[in-house]
Amino acid sequence: MALIVQKYGGTSVDGPERVKHVARRVVETKQAGNDVVVVVSAPGDMTDDLIAMAHELNPNPPAREMDMLLTTGEQMSIALLAMAIHQLGEKAISLTGAQVGILTNSAFSKARILEVSCERLRKELDQGKIVIVAGFQGITNDNEITTLGRGGSDTTAVAVAAVLKADVCQIYTDVDGVYTADPRVVSSAKKLEVISYDEMLELASLGAQVLQPRAVEFAKLNDVVLEVRSSFNNNEGTLVKEVTEMEKKMVVSGVAGDKNVARIALLDVPDVPGIASALFKALAEENINVDMIVQSAMQHCFNDIAFTVDRNDLKKAIEVSEKIKPEIGASGFTYNDKVAKVSIVGAGMITNPGVAASMFDCLANEGINIQMISTSEIKVSCIIDEKHLTKAMKSLHRHFGLE
Amino acid sequence: MALIVQKYGGTSVDGPERVKHVARRVVETKQAGNDVVVVVSAPGDMTDDLIAMAHELNPNPPAREMDMLLTTGEQMSIALLAMAIHQLGEKAISLTGAQVGILTNSAFSKARILEVSCERLRKELDQGKIVIVAGFQGITNDNEITTLGRGGSDTTAVAVAAVLKADVCQIYTDVDGVYTADPRVVSSAKKLEVISYDEMLELASLGAQVLQPRAVEFAKLNDVVLEVRSSFNNNEGTLVKEVTEMEKKMVVSGVAGDKNVARIALLDVPDVPGIASALFKALAEENINVDMIVQSAMQHCFNDIAFTVDRNDLKKAIEVSEKIKPEIGASGFTYNDKVAKVSIVGAGMITNPGVAASMFDCLANEGINIQMISTSEIKVSCIIDEKHLTKAMKSLHRHFGLE
Repeated sequence: MALIVQKYGGTSVDGPERVKHVARRVVETKQAGNDVVVVVSAPGDMTDDLIAMAHELNPNPPAREMDMLLTTGEQMSIALLAMAIHQLGEKAISLTGAQVGILTNSAFSKARILEVSCERLRKELDQGKIVIVAGFQGITNDNEITTLGRGGSDTTAVAVAAVLKADVCQIYTDVDGVYTADPRVVSSAKKLEVISYDEMLELASLGAQVLQPRAVEFAKLNDVVLEVRSSFNNNEGTLVKEVTEMEKKMVVSGVAGDKNVARIALLDVPDVPGIASALFKALAEENINVDMIVQSAMQHCFNDIAFTVDRNDLKKAIEVSEKIKPEIGASGFTYNDKVAKVSIVGAGMITNPGVAASMFDCLANEGINIQMISTSEIKVSCIIDEKHLTKAMKSLHRHFGLE
Repeated sequence: MALIVQKYGGTSVDGPERVKHVARRVVETKQAGNDVVVVVSAPGDMTDDLIAMAHELNPNPPAREMDMLLTTGEQMSIALLAMAIHQLGEKAISLTGAQVGILTNSAFSKARILEVSCERLRKELDQGKIVIVAGFQGITNDNEITTLGRGGSDTTAVAVAAVLKADVCQIYTDVDGVYTADPRVVSSAKKLEVISYDEMLELASLGAQVLQPRAVEFAKLNDVVLEVRSSFNNNEGTLVKEVTEMEKKMVVSGVAGDKNVARIALLDVPDVPGIASALFKALAEENINVDMIVQSAMQHCFNDIAFTVDRNDLKKAIEVSEKIKPEIGASGFTYNDKVAKVSIVGAGMITNPGVAASMFDCLANEGINIQMISTSEIKVSCIIDEKHLTKAMKSLHRHFGLE
């Protein structure tokens, strides 16, 4: 008997027919002799609808109230799924983040999980119940309701799998695995059988939109084996786990594109210690995630500092930049939200020099200008003009032999 | 400075424009120098929509999961109202039943409030915030989410007003007070300036649909002054409070009708002690509220026992009757859900004999047959054929000079 955590995204529980479908799949897993914990997101576009409702009332709603509002979506999903499972004759119980004991810090809208209690989960599992957990949400020590940020249900699933030492954490989504590129953009993309945490982490961070990066990180840290599968078919998915050296055959295993990027550059910053620290501390205090950072010495004693943020953080980032400009002695700043990030990822890169150069070459041949570059051991990312993203992805996919 | 509790029903918060309207009213009350606690219901028909969704998945959803589902409605309302108030520049915080500490028993879907903690409420009020509380919901000692039954938001409001010793508990609804009869049925109905708890209690129980009976009972027990007002205009409402003898001028102060009634009769029950007890204990164990009870000796040694329940409890009540039939030695039972209850209420009745007879006379003159009668010191109720309800209400309203 295995303990399986299954996570279903919003499209999987959008409407009664889909909820019934998920219920059948869950019950099949249970009746095959497994203990099952299910983590569910809010139905379909509900989160977006709620955000729109909020903005009609207040263009800048307090994050605490936003979390209060948004957590209702997952609460609906868990209750409805529990009812559908009962109808199929299995015992099920739904639990909110608070009821499970998913303790987070109080960074509303972007809370971090501090601890997951397994007491209640174990108690219900021991009674033979299928346990349904609301994704995306947690509770602080002060009894305040928090959310983990968009896609946070993946993190919930992995955290629950980790604390219960589950055999596998299956992430059901609308694609049936991890591909060498987004199949909607690059039609020749192929599904990967297995991918390492590190590669998945880079792909997730880079906007492959299959898994939340934090969830992958959490899985890696806690040795949780992930499986990305489709809830609409029974195809084998992609396993995300520790991959041995022997398996690292492909130099580049995937290409990713991300349009949720905005670029800010602070100009003519004096080249003295403490400048970058002041800037990025101020951004962190506003809970703005900075992705790429490039510092370039343009002239003697002065630097430009450019960085990228999520587009929906751009407004706040501009406010911070405006405020910090005099403090760090910058002459001004520019921003651009018409950029995109294209990346190549592969665990094999570490032992293959020249992969980055090959990427730049490929983009140059397509006439695509590179605005920023960032590299890690297993990925290379470039900021380019948004309008070239599809072309860049397709040509890189071909260039690195992923067809 | 007064402490005012305001309760807004579902129609008052249905859509952004109405939420804004409520926000303005709340802010006006606050800016007039009062401390304000607001209790809100789920928006519009949301509760009904959620129930319909649930029934698509499971015709008999577990009550626990139903409560999990339904409590999302109020949680949405409080978050949205808090945002709208922030937008008007006042500080506000929304609190779920669990966050306030509205402790209930674990009778899911019909939970009773055991205790309301005022700690968190006081803390937020002391910080100058408008506190917005989710109506209708509570939490058990085991951290389970419960609901107080339909209309439970009134009870929440009164319980909060009681524990905070509020100066007044204003119940905003879509009518601007308590009328001598439902104005939608009896067009000549008049608004009452003041009504006693007991009269209101009878009217509420009798389906006047303005206030939840339990809320009125709670208000009477805790000396909370209620004011029923419209959220759509600024008309003076109706005060519900302890009324002195001097004020009890009208013999009959109101006429009420209720179609949410079903009648069950157990036939030929042996006339021995313990029968009624066994029957009504079995019904209570299923959490079925029994309203009227009539036991009639039909022949030597045998009785018929007839009683009424809410129509949505009829199915369960039939099941209980079926099960208990052999145990209590009944020959069978009949039921009828095409009945209605018409009632007259008035504190002056106590000192005016013959009011009941006058009511029966009036109904007889209209050719309306009376199936069951139940009386208290201040009300007389008759079960009649559903199709005669409007005629009965109109003629009683005229008969007792309420025009």
